[in-house]
Amino acid sequence: MRVSFHYEPLSERSRSLREDIAVFSGSAHPELAEEICTHLGVPLRPVRVQRFANDCLEVQLEANCRERDVFLIQPLVRPVQEHLVELLLMLDAARGASAKRITVVMPHYSYARSDKKDAPRISIGGRLVADLMATAGAGRVLAMTLHSPQVHGFFSVPVDHLHALQELAKHFRQYDLSATTVVSPDLGNAKEAAHFARLLGVQVAAGAKQRFADDRVEISSVIGEITGRDVIVLDDEIAKGSTVIELLSKLRELKPRSIRVACTHGLFTSGALERIGGQPDVLEIVCTNTVPIPPEEQSPKLRVLSIAPALAEAMRRIHNGESVSALFETA
Amino acid sequence: MRVSFHYEPLSERSRSLREDIAVFSGSAHPELAEEICTHLGVPLRPVRVQRFANDCLEVQLEANCRERDVFLIQPLVRPVQEHLVELLLMLDAARGASAKRITVVMPHYSYARSDKKDAPRISIGGRLVADLMATAGAGRVLAMTLHSPQVHGFFSVPVDHLHALQELAKHFRQYDLSATTVVSPDLGNAKEAAHFARLLGVQVAAGAKQRFADDRVEISSVIGEITGRDVIVLDDEIAKGSTVIELLSKLRELKPRSIRVACTHGLFTSGALERIGGQPDVLEIVCTNTVPIPPEEQSPKLRVLSIAPALAEAMRRIHNGESVSALFETA
Amino acid sequence: MRVSFHYEPLSERSRSLREDIAVFSGSAHPELAEEICTHLGVPLRPVRVQRFANDCLEVQLEANCRERDVFLIQPLVRPVQEHLVELLLMLDAARGASAKRITVVMPHYSYARSDKKDAPRISIGGRLVADLMATAGAGRVLAMTLHSPQVHGFFSVPVDHLHALQELAKHFRQYDLSATTVVSPDLGNAKEAAHFARLLGVQVAAGAKQRFADDRVEISSVIGEITGRDVIVLDDEIAKGSTVIELLSKLRELKPRSIRVACTHGLFTSGALERIGGQPDVLEIVCTNTVPIPPEEQSPKLRVLSIAPALAEAMRRIHNGESVSALFETA
Amino acid sequence: MRVSFHYEPLSERSRSLREDIAVFSGSAHPELAEEICTHLGVPLRPVRVQRFANDCLEVQLEANCRERDVFLIQPLVRPVQEHLVELLLMLDAARGASAKRITVVMPHYSYARSDKKDAPRISIGGRLVADLMATAGAGRVLAMTLHSPQVHGFFSVPVDHLHALQELAKHFRQYDLSATTVVSPDLGNAKEAAHFARLLGVQVAAGAKQRFADDRVEISSVIGEITGRDVIVLDDEIAKGSTVIELLSKLRELKPRSIRVACTHGLFTSGALERIGGQPDVLEIVCTNTVPIPPEEQSPKLRVLSIAPALAEAMRRIHNGESVSALFETA
Amino acid sequence: MRVSFHYEPLSERSRSLREDIAVFSGSAHPELAEEICTHLGVPLRPVRVQRFANDCLEVQLEANCRERDVFLIQPLVRPVQEHLVELLLMLDAARGASAKRITVVMPHYSYARSDKKDAPRISIGGRLVADLMATAGAGRVLAMTLHSPQVHGFFSVPVDHLHALQELAKHFRQYDLSATTVVSPDLGNAKEAAHFARLLGVQVAAGAKQRFADDRVEISSVIGEITGRDVIVLDDEIAKGSTVIELLSKLRELKPRSIRVACTHGLFTSGALERIGGQPDVLEIVCTNTVPIPPEEQSPKLRVLSIAPALAEAMRRIHNGESVSALFETA
Amino acid sequence: MRVSFHYEPLSERSRSLREDIAVFSGSAHPELAEEICTHLGVPLRPVRVQRFANDCLEVQLEANCRERDVFLIQPLVRPVQEHLVELLLMLDAARGASAKRITVVMPHYSYARSDKKDAPRISIGGRLVADLMATAGAGRVLAMTLHSPQVHGFFSVPVDHLHALQELAKHFRQYDLSATTVVSPDLGNAKEAAHFARLLGVQVAAGAKQRFADDRVEISSVIGEITGRDVIVLDDEIAKGSTVIELLSKLRELKPRSIRVACTHGLFTSGALERIGGQPDVLEIVCTNTVPIPPEEQSPKLRVLSIAPALAEAMRRIHNGESVSALFETA
Repeated sequence: MRVSFHYEPLSERSRSLREDIAVFSGSAHPELAEEICTHLGVPLRPVRVQRFANDCLEVQLEANCRERDVFLIQPLVRPVQEHLVELLLMLDAARGASAKRITVVMPHYSYARSDKKDAPRISIGGRLVADLMATAGAGRVLAMTLHSPQVHGFFSVPVDHLHALQELAKHFRQYDLSATTVVSPDLGNAKEAAHFARLLGVQVAAGAKQRFADDRVEISSVIGEITGRDVIVLDDEIAKGSTVIELLSKLRELKPRSIRVACTHGLFTSGALERIGGQPDVLEIVCTNTVPIPPEEQSPKLRVLSIAPALAEAMRRIHNGESVSALFETA
Repeated sequence: MRVSFHYEPLSERSRSLREDIAVFSGSAHPELAEEICTHLGVPLRPVRVQRFANDCLEVQLEANCRERDVFLIQPLVRPVQEHLVELLLMLDAARGASAKRITVVMPHYSYARSDKKDAPRISIGGRLVADLMATAGAGRVLAMTLHSPQVHGFFSVPVDHLHALQELAKHFRQYDLSATTVVSPDLGNAKEAAHFARLLGVQVAAGAKQRFADDRVEISSVIGEITGRDVIVLDDEIAKGSTVIELLSKLRELKPRSIRVACTHGLFTSGALERIGGQPDVLEIVCTNTVPIPPEEQSPKLRVLSIAPALAEAMRRIHNGESVSALFETA
Repeated sequence: MRVSFHYEPLSERSRSLREDIAVFSGSAHPELAEEICTHLGVPLRPVRVQRFANDCLEVQLEANCRERDVFLIQPLVRPVQEHLVELLLMLDAARGASAKRITVVMPHYSYARSDKKDAPRISIGGRLVADLMATAGAGRVLAMTLHSPQVHGFFSVPVDHLHALQELAKHFRQYDLSATTVVSPDLGNAKEAAHFARLLGVQVAAGAKQRFADDRVEISSVIGEITGRDVIVLDDEIAKGSTVIELLSKLRELKPRSIRVACTHGLFTSGALERIGGQPDVLEIVCTNTVPIPPEEQSPKLRVLSIAPALAEAMRRIHNGESVSALFETA
Repeated sequence: MRVSFHYEPLSERSRSLREDIAVFSGSAHPELAEEICTHLGVPLRPVRVQRFANDCLEVQLEANCRERDVFLIQPLVRPVQEHLVELLLMLDAARGASAKRITVVMPHYSYARSDKKDAPRISIGGRLVADLMATAGAGRVLAMTLHSPQVHGFFSVPVDHLHALQELAKHFRQYDLSATTVVSPDLGNAKEAAHFARLLGVQVAAGAKQRFADDRVEISSVIGEITGRDVIVLDDEIAKGSTVIELLSKLRELKPRSIRVACTHGLFTSGALERIGGQPDVLEIVCTNTVPIPPEEQSPKLRVLSIAPALAEAMRRIHNGESVSALFETA
Repeated sequence: MRVSFHYEPLSERSRSLREDIAVFSGSAHPELAEEICTHLGVPLRPVRVQRFANDCLEVQLEANCRERDVFLIQPLVRPVQEHLVELLLMLDAARGASAKRITVVMPHYSYARSDKKDAPRISIGGRLVADLMATAGAGRVLAMTLHSPQVHGFFSVPVDHLHALQELAKHFRQYDLSATTVVSPDLGNAKEAAHFARLLGVQVAAGAKQRFADDRVEISSVIGEITGRDVIVLDDEIAKGSTVIELLSKLRELKPRSIRVACTHGLFTSGALERIGGQPDVLEIVCTNTVPIPPEEQSPKLRVLSIAPALAEAMRRIHNGESVSALFETA
Repeated sequence: MRVSFHYEPLSERSRSLREDIAVFSGSAHPELAEEICTHLGVPLRPVRVQRFANDCLEVQLEANCRERDVFLIQPLVRPVQEHLVELLLMLDAARGASAKRITVVMPHYSYARSDKKDAPRISIGGRLVADLMATAGAGRVLAMTLHSPQVHGFFSVPVDHLHALQELAKHFRQYDLSATTVVSPDLGNAKEAAHFARLLGVQVAAGAKQRFADDRVEISSVIGEITGRDVIVLDDEIAKGSTVIELLSKLRELKPRSIRVACTHGLFTSGALERIGGQPDVLEIVCTNTVPIPPEEQSPKLRVLSIAPALAEAMRRIHNGESVSALFETA
C-alpha cells in the first residue's frame, strides 16, 4: 500500500492569514519555528525574554496579539523547567494582550512520561503541567506523538494529536522495501509500528520486553520474521537508547540483512547517538526535528527529517477551521 | 516468598468512628456495601431513590451527613448510566447536606476503558466522568484496579488506587504452588501478573497478543514455561472472555498440567462464564466481588472472593488519616 | 386579538449557514432532529453511539466540528439517564473536536421538576444536571417551557427559553372560539393559561388546587366561567394525567359545552393517553412533539403539533446573532 | 395538635464553643446579632467598617479568625447595595484571615425576589448574588423563608433554610384557637399556611389571586371557611402591603369574627404598617425581627417576635455538626 | 518635544460598527457615555434600572445583545456601592443575553485604593471587586490611571490601561511653557509627572512626602527648580485635597511665578474644589471627566477636559482588534 | 523604645504537633528548612527529587501526608525556574497524597518583582505564579517582605506576610544607638525604614531617588540628618547593589560617623557583596537567611541573621490556629 500525501501549496497564502495569525517562538527551538513560518508564509513574530538579576524571566511579545489567532511554538525540551516557565509566561502575556485564541504548538511534551502514580506520594507531572498551561491561558494544544495515548485525556482543552509516520515513511520509500520488516522494541506498544508497516506495505515484528524480576528491562525474544530481512527499528522516542541497544543485540542473533533505526523524538541523551551510531551494523538513524539535536551529540549516520511542513499544515487548518483529523489521524 | 497480611481487628471500632462516619450505598451493589459496613462495625445508612413519572431520579440520604465523613459506595456496573446518575445525585445530596468530606468508593470504574481518542471526534468518557463526579461534589475516590494506570491522572481529586492481588494470592496459597506459573494474556500488561507471581513465589509467563493486520486480536505465542505446570491465567477484568478463550487454546498446545483462571473484575457478559466454565480443562474461575455477578451468569466452577475487608480497612485508614499506601501499594 | 406569526422562509438558506453550522442528534428524538434540519435546510450530521460490553457508551460525531457552530438536539426523555449521559458524552466529543460554540437544544428538560429541597438531604437534580452540562462543555441551552421559571436561573450558561403557545394557538384558531374558555388546572400557575387566552382572544379560568391536609392533591373548585362554554384545558406537561382527570370531574359539574385538552410536553406515562382519551366528553388531546410519543401510548383523539419550525427558527437566529426574544418571548 | 419545642439551655455553653466560634455582624442588623450571641453565650466580635473619601468601604474584623468557625450575620435589607458590598468585603476579610469555615447568616435575602427572567435581557439577581457570595468566600448560608423554594438551588454552597412558623405558632397559642382559620393571600403559595395551620391545629383557607388581564393583581375569591371565625392572615413577607389590604376587603365580605395579620419578613415600606394598622378590624400585626423595623414605620398594633433563639440554635448545631433539619424542617 | 496626536475621524464609522457593537451606560455617568457614543458614531442603548419595594435593583438592557460586542460604561463613583451592584447586574444581564464579548469601560476604579493588607483581617477591595466583575461576566476591562500599577494584576481578565496625560498636555500647550515645571506631590509616584513633563518638554520636580512619625503625611521639602517658574502640580486624583493644599504651602516658600493644579480623577470631596480654588495664587484647576463633578462642588477656576474621544478611540480599536498600546501606552 | 520579643519555648512541643504536621523542603534552601524543623521540634521529612533522562523532574514525598498539616519550604531563589517547577510538583504530590492542608513557606518570592505591566504585551509573573501555585494545590502561603505590598492581593489563597525587622533590630541593639539614623535608599518606600527606626528608637532619613530623564536611577539628595551620625542603610533586598552603592556616595558627602548596610533578602548577585564589602567605610553588611548566600559571594563583613525561629513560630501558630498578626504585624 502506498499513500500519496499532498499538502496544500503554501505559497498561495491569502493576505487574511498573514493578518489574523500571530506566531511566536520561545527559546526552545527557534529554528523549527522559523521553518514552520516559512511554510505558512507568515513572519515569525519577535519575543523578548529578559532575565532579571534575581533569575526571574519576563516575556514580551513584540507584535500585536489583539484579536489575533496566536500560536506559541515551544517543545518542552531541555532545559525543560526553563522552557516550561517561559511558555507559561508567554501564555500569560498573550492572554493579557487580548489574543482571540491561543494555541500551544508543542511538538515534544516531555512531561507526558510522568503519567501515572506507580509509587505513593509522587507527582503526576503530565497532568499537572496540562493544568498549568490551561491556568496560564492555553486555549488549545497541538502535540505530536505523546508518550501514551491516555495523556490526551490529561488536558482540559482541545488537543490535536499528530504523528510523524508519514514523514518517516516518505523517507524510507527511497529504499528497496521488498524484504523489509518494521520492528517495535516493545510488543505492548507495537500499534505504532504496525501502522507504520501498513504505510510502507511491509511486515512487522516486535521485541517481547519483560520487566518480570525487578526493574531491569530485558528483551527476551523477538516475535516476527527477521532473518535475512532489512530491519527498521521504530520507537516513539530515543533518550538514553538502552532499549534500542538491547534490541539490536537480540536482532543480531537472528541475522537480519540490514538494520536502520527510526524514531519521532530524537532526545539522544548521555551519548546515545554515539553509542547507537557506533554499532557497525546500524546503517542509518532517522528522527524528526521535534527536538533540537544538541551539538555535542552528533553522528554521521544521523538523518533528521523535518515535521515543519506537517505542523504548518495543521496550524493552517486549525486557523481556517478545516479538519485536522482528515489529514493526520485517519490517513 | 510469603506475605502475611493482617487487617486491624474490626470489632474494636471506637465509638467515634461510628459517630463521625456515614456510609451509604447506591443501588449498584448493596450486598458489598453491607459487607463493608459489617467489617467497619458501622451501620449502612439508608438511601431512598425515587423514580418520578418522567423517569428522573431523586435521591434522599436518610441519615445525618452534617460534618460527617461520608462514603458513597457505588461501582459503575450495568446499568452503568443509571448507576452513574444515581451516584451524581447522591453526591449532590451529600454536599447539600453539609458533609465534611465525601469519598466515592468505586470498586469498579467501567468508564476507565474509555481513556484515549483513537478516532476523531470521540468522547473520552474516563476523563469526563471523573470531572462530572468532581462537579457533583466528590472530594476523593477509592478505586480498585483501574483499567490503565494513567486513568488515575484523569481525576482532579485524590484517588486511592487499590488492587486485589493479596486477596487472590491468599486464595491460591491453599494449593500446592511448587510447579505453578502465572500467565498474563497480554505481554504489554504483564506487570500485574509479575507482581502477583512475586506474591506467590512462582514463575510468570505471558501471551504475546498481536493486533497487526487489522483490529483482530490474536495471541501468537506464549512466552515462558507452561508445559507440565499448574497455570493461573490472570487478567484485570473479564468481560466477554474472548481473550481468555483464545489464550486457553494457545496454552493447550503447550500441555500444562492444570489451568485456573483469575481476575479482579468479573464482568462476565454475553455468556462468558458459561463459555469459560465450559472448557473441561479449566478447573476453577476466581474473581472478586467488585462487580455483582448477574444471576443469569452462573458456573459451578466460579469462586468469588470478597474485597470487602480490604475496602473496609482502606476506608478506616482514610477516615483516621493513616497511610493507605503502606497497606496496599508497597506490600 | 389575533397574532400573525411569520417564520423566515427556510428554503432561502445561504450557503454559509450550511457550512458553519453542524447539527447532531442524540438517540432521544431523531425524528424531531430530522424535521428541524429540514426546516433549517442543513443536513443532520450522523452520530455513532457505541455501547461496550461493560455497558459504557462512547460517542463519535461523524462530521467536522472544528470552528463550527454546533447544535446537539436531545430532549431528556425516558430512558432519561441513558439520554443524559449520552448528551454529556456528545458535549465532551464536540468540545474535544474544537467546536466554536456548543448549544444544547433540549426541548424537554425533565430534571426541571427536581427544583427544590422539600425534604432534608435530597438532591436538587435540576441544578445538578445544569452544572453537569456546563462541565461537559455546553456553551448555551435552548429550552422549551421549563417546569418553573426559576429553573432558568439554575444554568450558568445563557438559556433561550421558548414556549409553544403560538403553535397551540394556531391549531385552535381553526375552531369557532366565540364561546371558549382556557382552563388552567392550577391557579398558582395560571400565568401561562392567561397568556394563551390572550393569544386566542378568549376567557380564562383556573382550578383551585389544594394540598392542605397531606400530600393528596385535590381540586376543590374552578374559578371562572365554564357552563355552556367550549373548554380548553391547558397544562405545561401531562405525565400520569391525574391532575387533568381530577379537573375534568370538577368541570363536568359545571356543564361545559365541550372539552379539549392541550399541553406542551406530552409525556403520557402509565396509560395517561388511554385514560384521558377514554373520557367520552374529551373531544381532542393536543400536544407538541417535544417528547416522542411512546408507541404503546396511543389515542385516536391525539393530535401532535410540531415545534420543529419554531426550534429551527430559534437556532437560525442564535446562529445569526438575531434576537430570539423578539420572536418568542414578547410576542 | 400542640408542639412543644425545646431549645438546648444556652447558658451551659462549653468553653470550646466560645473559643472556636467567631461571630461578626455587618451594619444591617446589629441588634439581632447581639441577641443571637447572647443566646449562644459567645461575644459578638467587633467589626470596623471604614468609608473612604471616595465612598469605598473597607472592613476589618477585629478578632482572630484563624481556624475559627466564622459566622457573618447580615440580612440583605435596605440600603441593600451597601449591605451587600459590606457583606462581600467581610467575607473577603474572613477568608484572607484564614477562617476555617465561613457561614453567612442571612435572615432576609431580598434578592430572592429576582428569581426568573420574565423579560428579555434582565438580570437574575437571586442567582448572581449567590454566585458573588461564593466568589467572596462564603462556605455556607443560613437563610430563612426564601421567597421561592427554587432559590435554594441558586446557591452552589450548602444552604440551611429555616422558617419561623414555630415562633409565630407559639405566639398565637396564647389565644383561644377553637374557631380559628389561617388564610393565605395566595392559593399558589398556600403550602406554608397549611403547614402553619397544622402546627396550630386549626383550619386553613386561601385567597385566589388572579393576574389574568394585565399586571394588576386581584383577589377574586377566598376559598375556605371564614364567616364567624378568627382569621390569621399569613404571608411570607409584607412590603408595600397591597396584597394584604386587598385580601382584607375580600375577607370582610365574608364577615369573620376577628382578623390578625402575620408574616415572617416585615419589610413594611411606603407606610405599609400605618395602612394595615389603620384598618379598624385588624387586631394585631405580627412579624419577626429578620428585618429591622424602620423607625418611621410604627404601629401600636405591631408585635415583633424574635427569631434570634432559633438562629442561635441553628448556628450551634451547624457548629457542632448536629442535624439542623431535625429541628426545623421536619417539625 | 511636542507630540502630535491624531484620532481617526469618527464620522466615517462603517455600518458594521453600528451593527456589531452595543454600548450601554449605568447610572454613574451617562453624560460621559453619551459623549463617547457621539464620538463612536453609534447610539447609546437604553438601560432600564428598576428599584423594587425592598430596595433591590433589577437591570434590563433594552437592545439586542446577542453576538454583539457589548460595552458597559460605568465609573465606580459615589454612591460606589449602588453603582458597583448595578454594574454587576448589567454584566449578568448581558451575559444571559448571549453577548459575544463584554467589556467594562471603567474610567475610574475607586476600589483600586484598597490594594494592600496593611492591617490584620482587612479586606482587599481592589482584588475582590475585580473577581466579582469576572464572576458576573466581565470579559475585559478598559480602565484609566489606576491608583497603583499593580492593581492591573488583580484582574484575571485582560485590562487595557489608559492614561489622560495627552489630554492634559494638549490643554497646557496653549500656554507659554518656556519656564514651566511639573511638580509631583509625592516623590515616590513621580513617574507620571516625569512622563507628563517629557510630553510638554519641561522640567519636573517633586515634593518629598514623609510619613515617618505616625500617620500624618507631611511634605518636608520640594526637590527641583521652583523659584520664578510656572508650576503645574500634577496628581493622579484629588479627593479631599489635603496633599495638594500642603504642597502649595511648601511651594509658596520657594516663590514660583504661577501655580496651576491638574489631575486625572477629580473626585473633589468635602469641599476640596472650594478649598483649592480659594487659594488666591492658584490660577487654574484642571481635571478630566472620568468622574462627574458633583454640583455642590463648583469653582470658577475649574476646567474639565473630556477623555471621551480617547475612550471612544480605544473602544473602536478594541472592537476592531487594533493595537491599543500603540496609541496610549508607548506614546 | 525597646521591644522585648519572646517566642514560645520550642522544646516543649506536644506529641500532637509531631504527629499532625509534616514539613518538607525542596532543594532551594534545605539548611533553612532543617533549622526551622529544629525550632519546631519536628523532623524534616525526606523528599526524593528525580531528574529523568529527558530533564523532567519527579517528586516523591517520603512520609505520610494523609490528613496531615503539610508545609512545603521553598524560597524561589536561583535557579528560579527549577525551584518553581519543583515546588509545583511537590504541591501536586501532597495534594494527591490527601494532605489536609498545604502551606507553601516561601521566605523569598522573587517573582514579586514582576508586578505590573509597564510595557505592552508583557507577562505579570507575580500574578501568574500565584495562580500556578493555587492550581497545583497550595492552600495558603507564608511569605516574607514581599517586594510591594500589593503583591499580597495577587494570591487567591490566604497569605501570612511576615517581615524580619525584629530580627534586624535585635542585632543592632548590641550597638550604641544614641546617634543612629536609619536611611532608606528610596523615599517612596521609606515606610519600612520608618518602622524599623521606631523599633530601634532612632531617627530616619531617606534618599530621594529620581528616574526623571530616562531609565537611569539617580539619588539626587538625602533627606534627614546624616552628618556625624551612625548610619544604618536599610533596604528590602539587595541584588546587584547599584542603588546602595550610589546611596553610599551621596551619604559620604554628608560625612556620617559610621555606615552599616542591612536588608532582608540578600540576593547579592554579580559580585554585589564584594563591591559593597569593598567600600572601606562600610563596617558591616547584615541580611537574613531567606536566600542562601552563594558560596562564590563572600565578604568578611557579612553577618547573616536567621529568620528560622520566626518562620517556625509562625508555622506553629498557623498549625494551632493562633493569631500570626498578633506576633508579627502589629509589633
